[in-house]
Amino acid sequence: MYSNDYWKNRSTVRNYSSREIPQSILLDMLDKASHAPTTGNMQLYSVVITRDAEMKKKLAPAHFNQPTVTSAPVVLTFCADYNRFVKWCEASNASPGYNNFQSFMTAVLDTALFAQQFNTIAEQSGLGCCYLGTTTYNAPMISEILGLPTMVVPVTTITVGYPAEDIKVEGVGRLPIDAVCHSEKYNDYSVEKIKEIYKEKEQRDDSKRFVTENGKETLAQVFTDVRYTKDACEYFSKVYHDFILKQGF
Amino acid sequence: MYSNDYWKNRSTVRNYSSREIPQSILLDMLDKASHAPTTGNMQLYSVVITRDAEMKKKLAPAHFNQPTVTSAPVVLTFCADYNRFVKWCEASNASPGYNNFQSFMTAVLDTALFAQQFNTIAEQSGLGCCYLGTTTYNAPMISEILGLPTMVVPVTTITVGYPAEDIKVEGVGRLPIDAVCHSEKYNDYSVEKIKEIYKEKEQRDDSKRFVTENGKETLAQVFTDVRYTKDACEYFSKVYHDFILKQGF
Repeated sequence: MYSNDYWKNRSTVRNYSSREIPQSILLDMLDKASHAPTTGNMQLYSVVITRDAEMKKKLAPAHFNQPTVTSAPVVLTFCADYNRFVKWCEASNASPGYNNFQSFMTAVLDTALFAQQFNTIAEQSGLGCCYLGTTTYNAPMISEILGLPTMVVPVTTITVGYPAEDIKVEGVGRLPIDAVCHSEKYNDYSVEKIKEIYKEKEQRDDSKRFVTENGKETLAQVFTDVRYTKDACEYFSKVYHDFILKQGF
Repeated sequence: MYSNDYWKNRSTVRNYSSREIPQSILLDMLDKASHAPTTGNMQLYSVVITRDAEMKKKLAPAHFNQPTVTSAPVVLTFCADYNRFVKWCEASNASPGYNNFQSFMTAVLDTALFAQQFNTIAEQSGLGCCYLGTTTYNAPMISEILGLPTMVVPVTTITVGYPAEDIKVEGVGRLPIDAVCHSEKYNDYSVEKIKEIYKEKEQRDDSKRFVTENGKETLAQVFTDVRYTKDACEYFSKVYHDFILKQGF
Protein backbone atom coordinates (compact mmCIF):
# COMPACT_ATOMS: atom_id res chain seq x y z
CA MET A 1 0.00 0.00 0.00
CA TYR A 2 2.69 2.44 1.03
CA SER A 3 5.82 2.49 -1.08
CA ASN A 4 9.36 2.68 0.29
CA ASP A 5 8.80 5.85 2.14
CA TYR A 6 5.91 5.28 4.49
CA TRP A 7 6.89 8.14 6.76
CA LYS A 8 6.35 11.05 4.41
CA ASN A 9 3.47 9.46 2.52
CA ARG A 10 1.22 8.41 5.35
CA SER A 11 -2.06 10.21 5.74
CA THR A 12 -5.26 10.09 7.75
CA VAL A 13 -7.97 7.72 6.46
CA ARG A 14 -11.58 8.57 7.25
CA ASN A 15 -13.41 6.17 4.90
CA TYR A 16 -13.39 2.47 5.69
CA SER A 17 -14.58 -0.68 3.98
CA SER A 18 -16.98 -2.98 5.85
CA ARG A 19 -14.19 -5.51 6.44
CA GLU A 20 -13.86 -6.32 10.15
CA ILE A 21 -10.55 -6.27 12.04
CA PRO A 22 -10.09 -9.65 13.76
CA GLN A 23 -9.69 -9.23 17.52
CA SER A 24 -6.43 -11.22 17.53
CA ILE A 25 -4.91 -8.80 15.00
CA LEU A 26 -6.13 -5.76 16.92
CA LEU A 27 -4.75 -7.05 20.22
CA ASP A 28 -1.45 -7.99 18.59
CA MET A 29 -1.05 -4.43 17.30
CA LEU A 30 -1.96 -2.97 20.69
CA ASP A 31 0.47 -5.36 22.36
CA LYS A 32 3.26 -4.19 20.09
CA ALA A 33 2.27 -0.57 20.73
CA SER A 34 2.46 -1.12 24.48
CA HIS A 35 6.23 -1.44 24.04
CA ALA A 36 6.36 2.27 23.23
CA PRO A 37 8.38 4.26 25.76
CA THR A 38 6.52 4.81 29.04
CA THR A 39 7.51 6.77 32.13
CA GLY A 40 9.23 4.47 34.63
CA ASN A 41 7.58 1.53 32.83
CA MET A 42 4.33 2.52 34.58
CA GLN A 43 2.09 2.29 31.46
CA LEU A 44 -0.28 4.97 32.68
CA TYR A 45 -3.00 4.35 30.10
CA SER A 46 -5.95 2.23 29.14
CA VAL A 47 -7.70 1.81 25.83
CA VAL A 48 -11.41 1.15 25.49
CA ILE A 49 -12.26 -0.82 22.35
CA THR A 50 -15.64 0.03 20.82
CA ARG A 51 -17.03 -2.39 18.23
CA ASP A 52 -20.70 -2.40 19.18
CA ALA A 53 -22.85 -0.32 16.82
CA GLU A 54 -25.00 1.03 19.66
CA MET A 55 -21.93 2.18 21.58
CA LYS A 56 -20.59 3.92 18.48
CA LYS A 57 -23.92 5.73 18.11
CA LYS A 58 -23.66 6.88 21.70
CA LEU A 59 -20.08 8.09 21.22
CA ALA A 60 -20.78 9.91 17.95
CA PRO A 61 -22.28 13.11 19.44
CA ALA A 62 -19.24 13.48 21.71
CA HIS A 63 -17.22 13.70 18.49
CA PHE A 64 -19.71 16.13 16.91
CA ASN A 65 -21.10 13.30 14.77
CA GLN A 66 -18.01 12.93 12.61
CA PRO A 67 -19.10 10.02 10.35
CA THR A 68 -15.88 8.10 10.97
CA VAL A 69 -17.09 7.17 14.48
CA THR A 70 -20.04 5.12 13.30
CA SER A 71 -18.50 3.90 10.03
CA ALA A 72 -15.22 2.55 11.43
CA PRO A 73 -15.24 -1.09 12.50
CA VAL A 74 -13.25 -0.16 15.60
CA VAL A 75 -13.10 2.99 17.71
CA LEU A 76 -10.28 3.17 20.25
CA THR A 77 -10.53 5.65 23.12
CA PHE A 78 -7.11 6.14 24.67
CA CYS A 79 -7.28 7.24 28.30
CA ALA A 80 -4.75 8.56 30.79
CA ASP A 81 -5.08 5.99 33.57
CA TYR A 82 -3.64 6.20 37.08
CA ASN A 83 -6.49 4.08 38.47
CA ARG A 84 -4.79 0.75 37.79
CA PHE A 85 -1.40 1.92 39.11
CA VAL A 86 -2.94 3.45 42.26
CA LYS A 87 -4.88 0.26 42.94
CA TRP A 88 -1.61 -1.66 42.62
CA CYS A 89 0.07 0.71 45.09
CA GLU A 90 -2.78 0.30 47.55
CA ALA A 91 -2.61 -3.48 47.20
CA SER A 92 1.15 -3.31 47.85
CA ASN A 93 1.25 -1.39 51.12
CA ALA A 94 2.37 1.76 49.28
CA SER A 95 0.84 5.27 49.54
CA PRO A 96 0.34 6.82 46.09
CA GLY A 97 0.41 10.62 45.69
CA TYR A 98 -0.76 10.94 42.11
CA ASN A 99 -3.89 13.05 42.49
CA ASN A 100 -2.26 16.08 40.89
CA PHE A 101 -1.56 17.84 37.60
CA GLN A 102 2.01 16.60 37.14
CA SER A 103 0.80 13.00 37.34
CA PHE A 104 -1.96 13.78 34.87
CA MET A 105 0.62 15.18 32.42
CA THR A 106 2.80 12.10 32.84
CA ALA A 107 -0.17 9.86 32.08
CA VAL A 108 -1.16 12.02 29.08
CA LEU A 109 2.30 11.63 27.56
CA ASP A 110 2.33 7.87 28.20
CA THR A 111 -1.09 7.65 26.54
CA ALA A 112 -0.12 9.74 23.51
CA LEU A 113 3.03 7.68 22.89
CA PHE A 114 1.05 4.45 23.12
CA ALA A 115 -1.64 5.78 20.77
CA GLN A 116 0.89 7.02 18.24
CA GLN A 117 2.80 3.74 18.30
CA PHE A 118 -0.49 1.95 17.60
CA ASN A 119 -1.27 4.39 14.80
CA THR A 120 2.06 3.67 13.08
CA ILE A 121 1.79 -0.09 13.52
CA ALA A 122 -1.79 -0.12 12.22
CA GLU A 123 -0.98 2.06 9.21
CA GLN A 124 2.06 -0.04 8.35
CA SER A 125 -0.19 -3.13 8.55
CA GLY A 126 -2.46 -1.74 5.84
CA LEU A 127 -5.11 -0.21 8.08
CA GLY A 128 -6.31 3.38 7.95
CA CYS A 129 -6.55 5.55 11.05
CA CYS A 130 -8.07 8.86 12.07
CA TYR A 131 -7.35 10.72 15.31
CA LEU A 132 -10.28 12.56 16.89
CA GLY A 133 -9.16 15.69 18.70
CA THR A 134 -12.69 16.12 19.99
CA THR A 135 -11.82 13.67 22.76
CA THR A 136 -10.52 16.47 25.00
CA TYR A 137 -13.67 18.50 24.27
CA ASN A 138 -16.42 16.19 25.38
CA ALA A 139 -14.43 14.09 27.82
CA PRO A 140 -17.20 14.04 30.46
CA MET A 141 -19.70 12.60 27.95
CA ILE A 142 -17.21 10.01 26.70
CA SER A 143 -16.33 9.08 30.25
CA GLU A 144 -20.00 8.58 31.13
CA ILE A 145 -20.59 6.35 28.09
CA LEU A 146 -17.49 4.22 28.66
CA GLY A 147 -17.91 4.04 32.44
CA LEU A 148 -14.53 5.52 33.35
CA PRO A 149 -13.72 5.56 37.07
CA THR A 150 -11.76 8.30 38.90
CA MET A 151 -8.11 8.72 37.87
CA VAL A 152 -9.05 7.91 34.26
CA VAL A 153 -9.44 10.67 31.65
CA PRO A 154 -9.96 10.31 27.87
CA VAL A 155 -7.05 11.87 25.96
CA THR A 156 -7.48 10.90 22.33
CA THR A 157 -9.44 8.60 20.05
CA ILE A 158 -8.40 6.71 16.94
CA THR A 159 -10.92 5.25 14.51
CA VAL A 160 -9.46 2.36 12.56
CA GLY A 161 -10.46 0.16 9.67
CA TYR A 162 -9.44 -1.11 6.26
CA PRO A 163 -9.41 1.81 3.83
CA ALA A 164 -12.45 2.07 1.54
CA GLU A 165 -10.22 2.90 -1.36
CA ASP A 166 -6.52 2.99 -2.13
CA ILE A 167 -4.79 5.51 0.05
CA LYS A 168 -3.44 8.44 -1.90
CA VAL A 169 0.28 8.18 -1.47
CA GLU A 170 0.92 11.80 -2.25
CA GLY A 171 1.02 12.63 1.45
CA VAL A 172 -0.19 15.80 3.10
CA GLY A 173 1.92 18.93 3.05
CA ARG A 174 3.80 20.02 6.11
CA LEU A 175 5.78 23.15 6.96
CA PRO A 176 9.42 23.07 5.84
CA ILE A 177 11.27 21.24 8.64
CA ASP A 178 13.51 24.27 9.27
CA ALA A 179 10.36 26.12 10.35
CA VAL A 180 9.86 23.90 13.40
CA CYS A 181 13.53 23.32 14.31
CA HIS A 182 15.67 25.67 16.39
CA SER A 183 19.41 25.34 16.88
CA GLU A 184 20.59 25.74 20.49
CA LYS A 185 18.12 28.56 21.23
CA TYR A 186 14.57 29.31 20.13
CA ASN A 187 14.83 31.54 17.10
CA ASP A 188 11.66 33.63 17.20
CA TYR A 189 9.82 34.39 13.97
CA SER A 190 9.67 37.76 12.25
CA VAL A 191 6.54 38.59 10.26
CA GLU A 192 8.56 38.10 7.07
CA LYS A 193 9.70 34.68 8.22
CA ILE A 194 6.12 33.69 9.10
CA LYS A 195 4.91 34.68 5.65
CA GLU A 196 7.70 32.69 4.04
CA ILE A 197 7.05 29.58 6.19
CA TYR A 198 3.30 29.48 5.53
CA LYS A 199 3.45 30.50 1.88
CA GLU A 200 3.31 27.00 0.40
CA LYS A 201 0.52 25.96 2.78
CA GLU A 202 -1.58 28.98 1.80
CA GLN A 203 -1.08 28.33 -1.90
CA ARG A 204 -2.17 24.70 -1.90
CA ASP A 205 -5.39 24.02 -3.81
CA ASP A 206 -7.15 22.52 -0.80
CA SER A 207 -6.28 25.59 1.29
CA LYS A 208 -7.68 27.93 -1.33
CA ARG A 209 -10.85 25.85 -1.54
CA PHE A 210 -11.10 25.96 2.25
CA VAL A 211 -10.98 29.76 2.25
CA THR A 212 -13.59 30.08 -0.49
CA GLU A 213 -15.96 27.49 0.96
CA ASN A 214 -15.94 29.23 4.31
CA GLY A 215 -16.32 32.70 2.83
CA LYS A 216 -13.13 33.96 4.47
CA GLU A 217 -10.31 36.26 3.36
CA THR A 218 -7.38 34.24 4.64
CA LEU A 219 -6.63 30.63 5.51
CA ALA A 220 -5.83 31.60 9.11
CA GLN A 221 -9.36 33.01 9.46
CA VAL A 222 -10.77 29.56 8.69
CA PHE A 223 -8.97 28.36 11.82
CA THR A 224 -9.78 31.29 14.10
CA ASP A 225 -13.36 31.94 12.94
CA VAL A 226 -14.62 28.49 11.97
CA ARG A 227 -12.59 25.49 13.06
CA TYR A 228 -11.04 26.49 16.40
CA THR A 229 -12.81 29.58 17.69
CA LYS A 230 -11.91 31.48 20.84
CA ASP A 231 -15.34 30.82 22.36
CA ALA A 232 -15.18 27.07 21.78
CA CYS A 233 -11.58 26.81 23.02
CA GLU A 234 -12.44 28.71 26.19
CA TYR A 235 -15.63 26.76 26.82
CA PHE A 236 -13.95 23.37 26.36
CA SER A 237 -10.93 24.50 28.38
CA LYS A 238 -13.15 24.86 31.40
CA VAL A 239 -15.01 21.62 30.70
CA TYR A 240 -11.79 19.60 30.39
CA HIS A 241 -9.95 21.26 33.27
CA ASP A 242 -12.94 20.83 35.61
CA PHE A 243 -13.22 17.21 34.50
CA ILE A 244 -9.56 16.47 35.22
CA LEU A 245 -10.09 17.78 38.77
CA LYS A 246 -13.34 15.81 39.11
CA GLN A 247 -11.54 12.63 38.06
CA GLY A 248 -9.18 13.10 40.98
CA PHE A 249 -6.08 14.70 39.48
CA MET B 1 20.39 -4.21 15.07
CA TYR B 2 16.77 -5.11 15.70
CA SER B 3 15.56 -8.39 14.31
CA ASN B 4 12.22 -8.88 12.51
CA ASP B 5 10.19 -7.70 15.39
CA TYR B 6 11.36 -4.21 16.19
CA TRP B 7 8.16 -3.31 18.00
CA LYS B 8 8.39 -5.69 20.92
CA ASN B 9 12.17 -5.64 21.16
CA ARG B 10 12.84 -1.92 21.20
CA SER B 11 14.19 -0.42 24.39
CA THR B 12 15.53 2.83 25.77
CA VAL B 13 19.24 3.49 25.20
CA ARG B 14 21.08 5.67 27.72
CA ASN B 15 24.69 5.02 26.73
CA TYR B 16 26.01 6.46 23.49
CA SER B 17 29.23 6.20 21.50
CA SER B 18 31.09 9.41 20.63
CA ARG B 19 29.95 9.14 17.00
CA GLU B 20 28.20 12.33 15.88
CA ILE B 21 24.83 12.41 14.12
CA PRO B 22 25.21 14.37 10.87
CA GLN B 23 22.82 17.32 10.77
CA SER B 24 21.37 16.22 7.42
CA ILE B 25 20.44 12.83 8.88
CA LEU B 26 18.92 14.42 11.97
CA LEU B 27 16.86 16.88 9.94
CA ASP B 28 15.73 14.14 7.57
CA MET B 29 14.44 12.09 10.52
CA LEU B 30 12.69 15.13 12.00
CA ASP B 31 11.20 15.92 8.60
CA LYS B 32 9.78 12.41 8.34
CA ALA B 33 8.48 12.68 11.92
CA SER B 34 6.69 15.92 11.08
CA HIS B 35 4.34 13.86 8.92
CA ALA B 36 2.92 12.31 12.09
CA PRO B 37 -0.75 13.13 12.61
CA THR B 38 -1.33 16.71 13.81
CA THR B 39 -4.53 18.49 14.77
CA GLY B 40 -5.97 20.31 11.75
CA ASN B 41 -2.49 20.15 10.19
CA MET B 42 -1.50 22.97 12.56
CA GLN B 43 1.82 21.38 13.71
CA LEU B 44 1.66 22.99 17.14
CA TYR B 45 5.23 22.17 18.16
CA SER B 46 8.85 23.17 17.91
CA VAL B 47 11.99 21.24 18.66
CA VAL B 48 15.14 22.82 20.01
CA ILE B 49 18.28 20.92 18.96
CA THR B 50 21.09 21.01 21.50
CA ARG B 51 24.54 19.94 20.31
CA ASP B 52 26.73 22.48 22.10
CA ALA B 53 28.51 21.03 25.15
CA GLU B 54 27.99 24.18 27.19
CA MET B 55 24.25 24.16 26.49
CA LYS B 56 24.05 20.51 27.52
CA LYS B 57 25.81 21.38 30.79
CA LYS B 58 23.25 24.10 31.40
CA LEU B 59 20.33 21.75 30.66
CA ALA B 60 21.66 18.90 32.79
CA PRO B 61 20.48 20.21 36.21
CA ALA B 62 16.97 20.66 34.82
CA HIS B 63 17.04 16.91 34.22
CA PHE B 64 18.50 16.19 37.68
CA ASN B 65 21.91 15.61 36.08
CA GLN B 66 20.94 12.38 34.34
CA PRO B 67 24.26 11.56 32.55
CA THR B 68 22.51 10.98 29.23
CA VAL B 69 22.02 14.75 28.81
CA THR B 70 25.74 15.55 28.62
CA SER B 71 26.85 12.27 27.03
CA ALA B 72 24.39 12.22 24.10
CA PRO B 73 25.56 13.91 20.90
CA VAL B 74 22.11 15.45 20.49
CA VAL B 75 19.46 16.53 22.97
CA LEU B 76 16.05 17.37 21.52
CA THR B 77 13.61 19.44 23.57
CA PHE B 78 10.11 19.07 22.16
CA CYS B 79 7.88 22.03 22.93
CA ALA B 80 4.17 22.71 22.62
CA ASP B 81 4.21 25.79 20.38
CA TYR B 82 1.28 28.08 19.60
CA ASN B 83 3.63 31.05 19.13
CA ARG B 84 4.29 30.36 15.45
CA PHE B 85 0.63 29.68 14.66
CA VAL B 86 -0.58 32.77 16.54
CA LYS B 87 1.98 34.93 14.74
CA TRP B 88 0.67 33.53 11.45
CA CYS B 89 -2.91 34.35 12.46
CA GLU B 90 -1.90 37.88 13.41
CA ALA B 91 -0.08 38.30 10.10
CA SER B 92 -3.21 37.07 8.29
CA ASN B 93 -5.83 39.43 9.65
CA ALA B 94 -7.18 36.68 11.92
CA SER B 95 -7.85 36.89 15.69
CA PRO B 96 -6.46 33.84 17.51
CA GLY B 97 -8.10 32.66 20.75
CA TYR B 98 -5.59 30.07 21.87
CA ASN B 99 -4.50 31.41 25.25
CA ASN B 100 -6.29 28.65 27.13
CA PHE B 101 -5.94 25.13 28.51
CA GLN B 102 -7.70 23.31 25.67
CA SER B 103 -5.25 24.80 23.17
CA PHE B 104 -2.37 23.82 25.42
CA MET B 105 -3.63 20.21 25.47
CA THR B 106 -3.98 20.19 21.70
CA ALA B 107 -0.40 21.38 21.33
CA VAL B 108 0.83 18.83 23.89
CA LEU B 109 -0.72 15.99 21.89
CA ASP B 110 0.70 17.30 18.61
CA THR B 111 4.11 17.53 20.28
CA ALA B 112 3.97 14.04 21.78
CA LEU B 113 2.97 12.46 18.45
CA PHE B 114 5.80 14.26 16.66
CA ALA B 115 8.31 13.22 19.34
CA GLN B 116 7.19 9.60 19.29
CA GLN B 117 7.31 9.45 15.50
CA PHE B 118 10.89 10.76 15.68
CA ASN B 119 11.73 8.21 18.37
CA THR B 120 10.53 5.33 16.19
CA ILE B 121 12.27 6.59 13.06
CA ALA B 122 15.54 7.16 14.94
CA GLU B 123 15.45 3.75 16.60
CA GLN B 124 14.66 2.02 13.31
CA SER B 125 17.64 3.89 11.79
CA GLY B 126 20.01 2.33 14.33
CA LEU B 127 20.07 5.18 16.83
CA GLY B 128 19.32 4.89 20.52
CA CYS B 129 16.90 7.22 22.29
CA CYS B 130 15.96 8.10 25.84
CA TYR B 131 12.92 10.17 26.86
CA LEU B 132 13.36 12.52 29.80
CA GLY B 133 10.16 12.88 31.80
CA THR B 134 11.87 15.56 33.89
CA THR B 135 10.97 18.05 31.14
CA THR B 136 7.59 18.79 32.75
CA TYR B 137 9.28 19.20 36.15
CA ASN B 138 11.79 21.92 35.47
CA ALA B 139 10.10 23.52 32.48
CA PRO B 140 10.78 27.09 33.67
CA MET B 141 14.53 26.42 33.87
CA ILE B 142 14.58 24.71 30.47
CA SER B 143 12.58 27.56 28.99
CA GLU B 144 15.02 30.13 30.36
CA ILE B 145 18.03 28.26 28.96
CA LEU B 146 16.50 27.75 25.51
CA GLY B 147 14.98 31.23 25.32
CA LEU B 148 11.38 30.11 24.81
CA PRO B 149 8.87 32.92 24.17
CA THR B 150 5.25 32.99 25.41
CA MET B 151 2.91 30.32 23.98
CA VAL B 152 5.82 27.84 24.01
CA VAL B 153 6.14 25.19 26.76
CA PRO B 154 8.60 22.27 26.96
CA VAL B 155 6.75 18.94 26.97
CA THR B 156 9.34 16.22 26.60
CA THR B 157 13.00 15.66 25.78
CA ILE B 158 14.72 12.89 23.84
CA THR B 159 18.45 12.29 24.03
CA VAL B 160 19.73 10.54 20.93
CA GLY B 161 22.97 8.98 19.75
CA TYR B 162 24.54 5.84 18.37
CA PRO B 163 24.40 3.13 21.04
CA ALA B 164 27.65 2.52 22.96
CA GLU B 165 27.10 -1.19 22.74
CA ASP B 166 24.78 -3.60 21.02
CA ILE B 167 21.23 -3.05 22.16
CA LYS B 168 19.88 -5.96 24.13
CA VAL B 169 17.10 -7.31 21.97
CA GLU B 170 15.34 -9.02 24.83
CA GLY B 171 12.99 -6.07 25.20
CA VAL B 172 11.56 -4.72 28.42
CA GLY B 173 8.59 -6.41 30.02
CA ARG B 174 5.16 -4.88 29.82
CA LEU B 175 1.83 -5.74 31.43
CA PRO B 176 -0.21 -8.39 29.59
CA ILE B 177 -2.10 -6.47 26.89
CA ASP B 178 -5.46 -7.61 28.30
CA ALA B 179 -4.60 -5.60 31.40
CA VAL B 180 -4.74 -2.27 29.54
CA CYS B 181 -7.60 -3.09 27.13
CA HIS B 182 -11.28 -2.79 27.92
CA SER B 183 -14.09 -4.06 25.71
CA GLU B 184 -16.97 -1.59 25.20
CA LYS B 185 -16.88 -0.39 28.83
CA TYR B 186 -14.10 0.17 31.35
CA ASN B 187 -13.79 -3.02 33.34
CA ASP B 188 -12.53 -1.87 36.75
CA TYR B 189 -9.92 -3.95 38.54
CA SER B 190 -10.50 -6.08 41.63
CA VAL B 191 -7.62 -6.49 44.07
CA GLU B 192 -7.23 -10.07 42.85
CA LYS B 193 -7.03 -8.91 39.25
CA ILE B 194 -4.44 -6.26 40.16
CA LYS B 195 -2.27 -8.87 41.85
CA GLU B 196 -2.54 -11.14 38.83
CA ILE B 197 -1.70 -8.35 36.36
CA TYR B 198 1.39 -7.13 38.22
CA LYS B 199 2.67 -10.55 39.27
CA GLU B 200 5.14 -11.02 36.44
CA LYS B 201 6.43 -7.46 36.81
CA GLU B 202 7.06 -7.94 40.53
CA GLN B 203 8.87 -11.21 39.98
CA ARG B 204 11.36 -9.94 37.41
CA ASP B 205 14.97 -9.94 38.58
CA ASP B 206 15.40 -6.23 37.99
CA SER B 207 12.28 -5.49 40.03
CA LYS B 208 13.54 -7.55 42.93
CA ARG B 209 16.91 -5.80 42.77
CA PHE B 210 15.11 -2.47 42.75
CA VAL B 211 13.24 -3.32 45.94
CA THR B 212 16.38 -4.52 47.73
CA GLU B 213 18.58 -1.62 46.61
CA ASN B 214 16.03 0.88 47.86
CA GLY B 215 15.43 -0.94 51.14
CA LYS B 216 11.70 -1.29 50.50
CA GLU B 217 9.16 -4.03 51.12
CA THR B 218 7.33 -3.89 47.79
CA LEU B 219 8.03 -2.73 44.25
CA ALA B 220 5.18 -0.22 44.44
CA GLN B 221 6.89 1.44 47.42
CA VAL B 222 9.92 2.15 45.22
CA PHE B 223 7.60 4.25 43.06
CA THR B 224 5.64 5.99 45.84
CA ASP B 225 8.52 6.51 48.30
CA VAL B 226 11.55 7.00 46.04
CA ARG B 227 10.91 7.62 42.34
CA TYR B 228 7.63 9.55 42.18
CA THR B 229 6.81 10.84 45.65
CA LYS B 230 3.67 12.72 46.60
CA ASP B 231 5.69 15.77 47.69
CA ALA B 232 7.63 15.98 44.41
CA CYS B 233 4.51 15.40 42.29
CA GLU B 234 2.64 18.14 44.15
CA TYR B 235 5.54 20.58 44.04
CA PHE B 236 6.15 20.11 40.31
CA SER B 237 2.41 20.19 39.60
CA LYS B 238 2.31 23.75 40.85
CA VAL B 239 5.53 24.70 39.06
CA TYR B 240 4.30 23.35 35.71
CA HIS B 241 0.73 24.62 35.99
CA ASP B 242 1.91 28.10 36.98
CA PHE B 243 4.37 28.04 34.10
CA ILE B 244 1.69 27.11 31.55
CA LEU B 245 -0.33 30.12 32.69
CA LYS B 246 2.76 32.35 32.65
CA GLN B 247 3.49 31.27 29.07
CA GLY B 248 0.08 32.58 28.08
CA PHE B 249 -2.15 29.52 27.98
